[in-house]
Amino acid sequence: MAEVATARRSRITPERAAELYAAVLDLLREVGYDALTMDAVAARTRSSKATLYRQWGGKAELVAKAVRHSKPGGSLDRIDTGSLKGDLHAVTMRSDDCQMEQNSALMRGLAMAVHSNPDLLRAFREHLVEPEMADFRRVIQRAVDRGEIRPDNPAIEFVMHMMVGAFAARTLIDEQPPTQAFLISYIDAVVLPALGAPTG
Amino acid sequence: MAEVATARRSRITPERAAELYAAVLDLLREVGYDALTMDAVAARTRSSKATLYRQWGGKAELVAKAVRHSKPGGSLDRIDTGSLKGDLHAVTMRSDDCQMEQNSALMRGLAMAVHSNPDLLRAFREHLVEPEMADFRRVIQRAVDRGEIRPDNPAIEFVMHMMVGAFAARTLIDEQPPTQAFLISYIDAVVLPALGAPTG
Repeated sequence: MAEVATARRSRITPERAAELYAAVLDLLREVGYDALTMDAVAARTRSSKATLYRQWGGKAELVAKAVRHSKPGGSLDRIDTGSLKGDLHAVTMRSDDCQMEQNSALMRGLAMAVHSNPDLLRAFREHLVEPEMADFRRVIQRAVDRGEIRPDNPAIEFVMHMMVGAFAARTLIDEQPPTQAFLISYIDAVVLPALGAPTG
Repeated sequence: MAEVATARRSRITPERAAELYAAVLDLLREVGYDALTMDAVAARTRSSKATLYRQWGGKAELVAKAVRHSKPGGSLDRIDTGSLKGDLHAVTMRSDDCQMEQNSALMRGLAMAVHSNPDLLRAFREHLVEPEMADFRRVIQRAVDRGEIRPDNPAIEFVMHMMVGAFAARTLIDEQPPTQAFLISYIDAVVLPALGAPTG
């Protein structure tokens, strides 16, 4: 116990964490959230369960952080093209179509698991939904500051719904994973006009 | 076999079909699509498996038709309020919040099952997605004919994505089932402005 209590969280390097996250995503794709165990993660990554629990607290947090880490290009916050259209297109271009298809399958599985795992829902919100929403709010705020959209436009509160919805509906309606071309058409036809933002 | 071959599909009355559909939805909520068996449906409804297969062909078609049958108020086609805003609000008002919450849970389960069951995907498209899309196209066409929206508005092809997306994103982002109030705000803030339709 003394060793655990004094262990510093910083003992895992970013490189090692990246390896662990990649292994967690592989396991998620293979068996799904419910069947994923910390034992399997420990075995696959040759780490001890004590280390995993010390560093991540539990399965839900480990999975949420692994998914967050896999988001290409990191935070939306680094995107600042000078126009809302440019920023939203840049968001889309962070993932190529292959990554988007993989991500779509993974998120579908997790979206289901969230409904029967309150821990995962909490971790998902804390590490994925809320940071992404905060990033979107900054992108929108810059568009408001530039005068591209009115601060009282009622579509502002639905930006995430529009984007997440397009992603989810694409598979159901068109039997195709979302692609960059699809998302860019959707942004130009739906998101920018709803926000009253320049589309040209 | 002679009896099966000469049996007429019309032997099941609409009332009896409604009972069967209700039992199928109960079973779906209890065990999910993958664990649902025709044996369980036969036992629950005191019908023979031969009858079920004769009438519906298989599990996928039976489930898709049961879901379609559960849609309150039947086809969108009966809705014709004289404005696009009125029509889309009327679509939303077909289900009260309790029905919407039940429907949302059920559709979430089926949306997952579709990805590993090609039969279900086909039946889902044939009996649910395509009829609903055709209905939406008629609603939109009337709005075009009335001069409410331009026929070349690029958002027209995304009407289903906007609507389905709002439904799906609501649970993920807000941790709440979609409600009438949410959907009406979304229609007024997003769908009508994207289509360039009157919102007042």
